[in-house]
Amino acid sequence: MKLVIIGGGSSYTPEIIEGVIDRHHQFPVTELVLVDIEDGKEKLNIIGALAQRMIEKSGVSIQLSWTLNRQEALMNADFVTTQIRVGGLAARAKDERIPLKHGLIGQETNGAGGIFKAFRTIPVLMEICNDISEICPNAWLINFTNPAGIVTEALLKYSAHKKVIGVCNIPFNMKHSVAEIMGCNPEEVEIEFIGINHFVFGSKVLIRGEDKTDQVLAKLSNSELNYSPANIVSLGWKKEFIESIKLLPNPYHQYYFQTDEVLKKDIKAFHENGTRAEIVQQVERELFQKYQDPNLQVKPKELEKRGGAYYSHAACSLMASIYNNKGDIQTVNIQNHGAISDLPFDCVIEVNAVITKDGPKPVTIGRLPKQVKAVIQQMKGFEELVVEAAVTGDYSLAYASMIMNPLVRNESKAKAVLDELLEAHREYLPQFH
Amino acid sequence: MKLVIIGGGSSYTPEIIEGVIDRHHQFPVTELVLVDIEDGKEKLNIIGALAQRMIEKSGVSIQLSWTLNRQEALMNADFVTTQIRVGGLAARAKDERIPLKHGLIGQETNGAGGIFKAFRTIPVLMEICNDISEICPNAWLINFTNPAGIVTEALLKYSAHKKVIGVCNIPFNMKHSVAEIMGCNPEEVEIEFIGINHFVFGSKVLIRGEDKTDQVLAKLSNSELNYSPANIVSLGWKKEFIESIKLLPNPYHQYYFQTDEVLKKDIKAFHENGTRAEIVQQVERELFQKYQDPNLQVKPKELEKRGGAYYSHAACSLMASIYNNKGDIQTVNIQNHGAISDLPFDCVIEVNAVITKDGPKPVTIGRLPKQVKAVIQQMKGFEELVVEAAVTGDYSLAYASMIMNPLVRNESKAKAVLDELLEAHREYLPQFH
Amino acid sequence: MKLVIIGGGSSYTPEIIEGVIDRHHQFPVTELVLVDIEDGKEKLNIIGALAQRMIEKSGVSIQLSWTLNRQEALMNADFVTTQIRVGGLAARAKDERIPLKHGLIGQETNGAGGIFKAFRTIPVLMEICNDISEICPNAWLINFTNPAGIVTEALLKYSAHKKVIGVCNIPFNMKHSVAEIMGCNPEEVEIEFIGINHFVFGSKVLIRGEDKTDQVLAKLSNSELNYSPANIVSLGWKKEFIESIKLLPNPYHQYYFQTDEVLKKDIKAFHENGTRAEIVQQVERELFQKYQDPNLQVKPKELEKRGGAYYSHAACSLMASIYNNKGDIQTVNIQNHGAISDLPFDCVIEVNAVITKDGPKPVTIGRLPKQVKAVIQQMKGFEELVVEAAVTGDYSLAYASMIMNPLVRNESKAKAVLDELLEAHREYLPQFH
Amino acid sequence: MKLVIIGGGSSYTPEIIEGVIDRHHQFPVTELVLVDIEDGKEKLNIIGALAQRMIEKSGVSIQLSWTLNRQEALMNADFVTTQIRVGGLAARAKDERIPLKHGLIGQETNGAGGIFKAFRTIPVLMEICNDISEICPNAWLINFTNPAGIVTEALLKYSAHKKVIGVCNIPFNMKHSVAEIMGCNPEEVEIEFIGINHFVFGSKVLIRGEDKTDQVLAKLSNSELNYSPANIVSLGWKKEFIESIKLLPNPYHQYYFQTDEVLKKDIKAFHENGTRAEIVQQVERELFQKYQDPNLQVKPKELEKRGGAYYSHAACSLMASIYNNKGDIQTVNIQNHGAISDLPFDCVIEVNAVITKDGPKPVTIGRLPKQVKAVIQQMKGFEELVVEAAVTGDYSLAYASMIMNPLVRNESKAKAVLDELLEAHREYLPQFH
Repeated sequence: MKLVIIGGGSSYTPEIIEGVIDRHHQFPVTELVLVDIEDGKEKLNIIGALAQRMIEKSGVSIQLSWTLNRQEALMNADFVTTQIRVGGLAARAKDERIPLKHGLIGQETNGAGGIFKAFRTIPVLMEICNDISEICPNAWLINFTNPAGIVTEALLKYSAHKKVIGVCNIPFNMKHSVAEIMGCNPEEVEIEFIGINHFVFGSKVLIRGEDKTDQVLAKLSNSELNYSPANIVSLGWKKEFIESIKLLPNPYHQYYFQTDEVLKKDIKAFHENGTRAEIVQQVERELFQKYQDPNLQVKPKELEKRGGAYYSHAACSLMASIYNNKGDIQTVNIQNHGAISDLPFDCVIEVNAVITKDGPKPVTIGRLPKQVKAVIQQMKGFEELVVEAAVTGDYSLAYASMIMNPLVRNESKAKAVLDELLEAHREYLPQFH
Repeated sequence: MKLVIIGGGSSYTPEIIEGVIDRHHQFPVTELVLVDIEDGKEKLNIIGALAQRMIEKSGVSIQLSWTLNRQEALMNADFVTTQIRVGGLAARAKDERIPLKHGLIGQETNGAGGIFKAFRTIPVLMEICNDISEICPNAWLINFTNPAGIVTEALLKYSAHKKVIGVCNIPFNMKHSVAEIMGCNPEEVEIEFIGINHFVFGSKVLIRGEDKTDQVLAKLSNSELNYSPANIVSLGWKKEFIESIKLLPNPYHQYYFQTDEVLKKDIKAFHENGTRAEIVQQVERELFQKYQDPNLQVKPKELEKRGGAYYSHAACSLMASIYNNKGDIQTVNIQNHGAISDLPFDCVIEVNAVITKDGPKPVTIGRLPKQVKAVIQQMKGFEELVVEAAVTGDYSLAYASMIMNPLVRNESKAKAVLDELLEAHREYLPQFH
Repeated sequence: MKLVIIGGGSSYTPEIIEGVIDRHHQFPVTELVLVDIEDGKEKLNIIGALAQRMIEKSGVSIQLSWTLNRQEALMNADFVTTQIRVGGLAARAKDERIPLKHGLIGQETNGAGGIFKAFRTIPVLMEICNDISEICPNAWLINFTNPAGIVTEALLKYSAHKKVIGVCNIPFNMKHSVAEIMGCNPEEVEIEFIGINHFVFGSKVLIRGEDKTDQVLAKLSNSELNYSPANIVSLGWKKEFIESIKLLPNPYHQYYFQTDEVLKKDIKAFHENGTRAEIVQQVERELFQKYQDPNLQVKPKELEKRGGAYYSHAACSLMASIYNNKGDIQTVNIQNHGAISDLPFDCVIEVNAVITKDGPKPVTIGRLPKQVKAVIQQMKGFEELVVEAAVTGDYSLAYASMIMNPLVRNESKAKAVLDELLEAHREYLPQFH
Repeated sequence: MKLVIIGGGSSYTPEIIEGVIDRHHQFPVTELVLVDIEDGKEKLNIIGALAQRMIEKSGVSIQLSWTLNRQEALMNADFVTTQIRVGGLAARAKDERIPLKHGLIGQETNGAGGIFKAFRTIPVLMEICNDISEICPNAWLINFTNPAGIVTEALLKYSAHKKVIGVCNIPFNMKHSVAEIMGCNPEEVEIEFIGINHFVFGSKVLIRGEDKTDQVLAKLSNSELNYSPANIVSLGWKKEFIESIKLLPNPYHQYYFQTDEVLKKDIKAFHENGTRAEIVQQVERELFQKYQDPNLQVKPKELEKRGGAYYSHAACSLMASIYNNKGDIQTVNIQNHGAISDLPFDCVIEVNAVITKDGPKPVTIGRLPKQVKAVIQQMKGFEELVVEAAVTGDYSLAYASMIMNPLVRNESKAKAVLDELLEAHREYLPQFH
């Protein structure tokens, strides 16, 4: 069984290597190829060597290689993962810095920054998908490149390859947070997720099959629990907010319902430490220094600071369940197909799905909860514009997506930020130029 | 844990008793009550005594009782099953005989006979549901009274109790038939079911997770396989039919696509042996004679002739999975909620669902296959009329349901059959009189 | 303003010529071209000459010509009408004769015959549409070639030209019948039509704006009114049928709800006079003899026997309203777009529409009446299969359409009739061979 | 024919009196009753006397009366209009002042102020509707009380009376603006409206039936045209905005896409002149002084300053078309019923409808334009929460509606503004207390 990791030179790769090693008894990868591009060659070599040491130490039988030749790597692949960052952290810094200059949150998932991350990423992933569909058409592509929901929607709507699943660690993190709140094991927690990537809500929380939603919401609205993963700010929720929506929010919701406060915090943080991208660049430099240590044979603890905890867990669980036709429930980004009646049939949602060898089958949800239907529909309508703009390179659609974004909306700022970002990222946006 | 069997005096009861005994390790019933009505008192006593002997022989620790007092029986129930026949086999004989007289198939599921079985059954089950919702509101009602889909739709739309699941053995039988065809174990077979009770198709067949639909359909259209359970006639399918619909039909489909041939066979059989109801009456008499034998301590082999094989298996599997929050896939009759986009949101469909302590969650299907959308929508539109007519007792709706039935359609025959059946079943149809 | 009549050699043409002459004050056609194919040359010459005499007699200023060169005729056209019969009446005779042989009604709209009329017609009209879209893209195509609903759906889904409107005289005839029943002027009657071509119901009848539905239905179910146009048989409706569906049926509904009786009548008529096609052939021969009379300067009375009364009225009214941006309500066959919520978005329905220069805008209907939802959805599902089979030439789809037809359904007969008709019409069905 | 004006003491009433007089030839009102409440007695007397003078001067034969007894007034009514302001302009001042204090636009249609206008108005109009449904069930209620869309939705969903039509002058104003831009007569302009009250877009502009959308949008995005009615601020649109959405915005859209700029202007205006409500109070005082002048026999010019121009025109046109079964197109607020596929079936939209004696029939639109689907769905989702909160008095729903409002969104501000307004309007919000 062959696994190909595209973006193999990423600082995250040791996580997924660890995941593959740990699951080898149930997900027996025999061939593992790390792929990257010319610009990432040096990093790829460092990661490749570390991965080799990790595999050797573990004693599992995996044949590892690393290469810049994607087409060759894809031959006979069973699974492909993508974790790429077109333009690198320097591009992310612009995604954050430019909106902030105009008084907007420079958010890399569903904000102005996320729009441009999508614009840069989608054309590259379209190419990768077309390669897969020609070279290894039976392979599953597990995409955890952000904005994962938007990117996956673009691929499933417009690429030749239809075996694509988007993965995010937020649902996993939410289960962990609930387990913390309720003092139980994360494996005992089930959440009915409703919505879309980075904008998903939990409509029901079950502990060992029993509905404990009310208790969890009560604790959440009463306590001072630190309910947030490492990589995003968190300000806690008003008791009345939780009582009113009667749903479990995810940490990204603060961008939309506490915009003023987050913006203030972001601006302050920016003046003290620069953008998140710039902080991460420093973390990365330190990480790669560690990775180069020939004595390092395991994933270093410091990687956790990087955020994205459980990403690799989510991806490896998913691939193992597909491989074993396990039929368990995991939360993935796939096409709606009616699971949520009031979202478009072919859009991508983040949904609990039965994971089988034949792919993920979404569990039917029905209608969106009335309390949040307005904003979920708005966000999805916005995302559909981003997808179409990314694929067509149409300026009008790009502008429409910017102005429909709930964190932008202002026609003047939308134009200013759009034009500045289009210029700043010119080299990565051939479709617009 | 307490299980209540309503219609406990049924000849089928030994099946479910056997199922409960066999699954005791994973579904540990501690209290079991058989309930019936005054008219069924004698049979109830026979079944009660046999069940007692079966339990004793098995050595499992279940406290058994039988009673005519339904309300008392329902106290503290966790699960309730219903297998009732309002008017008994005598009524079924009329359901079959009267349509046949007018040249129509007297079919007890979705034909003219089924309409009247629904009319007689729904008011009684509405009362039962209202009792449950007052006396044991947390109990799950597992309904396998036919027409199971129509009855379950009536209960979920109009009764006070919403924890109702309809069960049929057809999906189970289809898996067994596929296992036979493919020479594998039924547990290894998964079928994606699409449609409604007694009119369900298999859109995908997987063996150990691999898609084998084409092979199964090829075998089905080429061979002389006896692809049918014991209780319905079967004539085999034209190669072109299977190639054209590209779906696995169920044995009841012959009523709709081989109507002339089935009718001819039914008329011939009727002249030789009377209606199916009359044959079954004879089988029942013999069964109850067996059941009375104080040496009989197990379900007698002869019960299998009665049809309905695997009904008890389907019901016991379902209850065990709910009890254990198992999360496996079973095929049940529950509300659509968007699982099939082109059927009404609140209608009942027969669908693969994830079975949990929190109830069954339908797996999303998407759109109906274009080849059979016409007839599935037609059948569901017909069923909705039957449900509303049964609940309101409205003559116009009853007539509309009769004329919209795909086996009736003729306005004159519809009227003749309707009026004759309304008269024949007068005592069981208070809502119409 | 230029009008092109494709199928100009049809015996119906004098009707439309009369319509154009009568409406010249509000619909001032200046150029009129009759187009036909080589096989119809002789008839075209007869019709052309008659039309010339009619125009001269009327004194209106229209420049008439007739030609076999379609492309040339289409230059600068504003309106195009199509009334073609691929294979002529000889083909229709086969459409009727072959099903009848197998005990099926050989019906040329939505029956087995209609399927093949669609298969023969759609490819030819696709070519015409492609011509129009290249040569005169702003022209409206008014299609009254049967089965008008199915043909129009094929063109709007698959051809390059989107300005297509299907027209049928049934809604017009129904208004006339209501006027007769109610003793008022047809112009005072409005009917809310619901459904699809040849399967349309009236859900509301208004006389001078007042809702008189109940009175009309009461008269309809009580009286012996001769409620039917000349060209189809009619048997009257059961009081209970009308009371139950609470809708105004159209005369074609007898094929579906009085199938046995119509079949009996058809077989009897066939043995006495041959098929309807053969009767019509005789009528046509007589008509063309009349048409050749150089003294004939008006549409002869005998044309009315031919059926299709008001077809020309429907077409001319429609063109006049478009031309004048009149904004009145007419009943046309156009894409649904949500007007009926429980039919597919892009299918063609027969619906009241506001007629403007910008085209027809369907009036929103909402949900189908529950009494007939089953059969309307069935019929539309069947039609979608016919359209796709006609366009692709796929045998499986053709067979699926035949078996899903409410007048066929039997898998054996479906196959026999399908194969025989495919063979009989071989020369006109290149897509299948 | 009897017309009842509820809120007859409104300063707007002379407008509608003028409209009724001017249209008397085609809309022959014979009896006209002005109704108001105790608090409005004095104003009602002034308006009554003025109306009497206007009628006398015109010479039309209308019997006028005014009363505080609503039930009596409604006897035998054919049409009822409502133009009420629960709590008067003092309440409006609070609706504007309190949000502004928290940095939010105090907008009386779909902003925080509008939520509370709906909360105060809906219970009163529910009572009126229940009266109508008992006293004069055949009467049409023409509602132009704001927020007209939300109020009409509440009445059509929850009141006993279903003959309710909401009217707004915005569509009419937009036609006038287009006529100005294009230098033509307003009667020659047709606009395809898409969306909901105060949030409606024009998707197509036709002049004398010809599609001139591109020209209108080009002029709109290029020029400095004063494109706005008197009663709302207007800042003009960015060329790119118009090019991007490809739709005609309405003046209220500036609140959503130019929020920062409008807010700045509002705050400045507030500091200079107080709220709009306070300006209007001054205008009203002056108007009533004029109205008292016994020599005044016509609507004074000054009324136009009051805003709401064409409201009376819209209402009178609508009533005249219903009365005459005219079948013309007018833009009204009625239930969707599928006219827009991606909005809820039973919600109220602002839509072109065919106006008949049998009521308005919405013209089918199909899908929302992708450019603005996000925000229209969001706004409607918000409105549904307002309606349900207004009817139930549920605090959680009220808070949810406030936070889902596109001009609020912030959870802290939402709570502060909500609590303060609930307190400020306590006497008019019995359902919440």
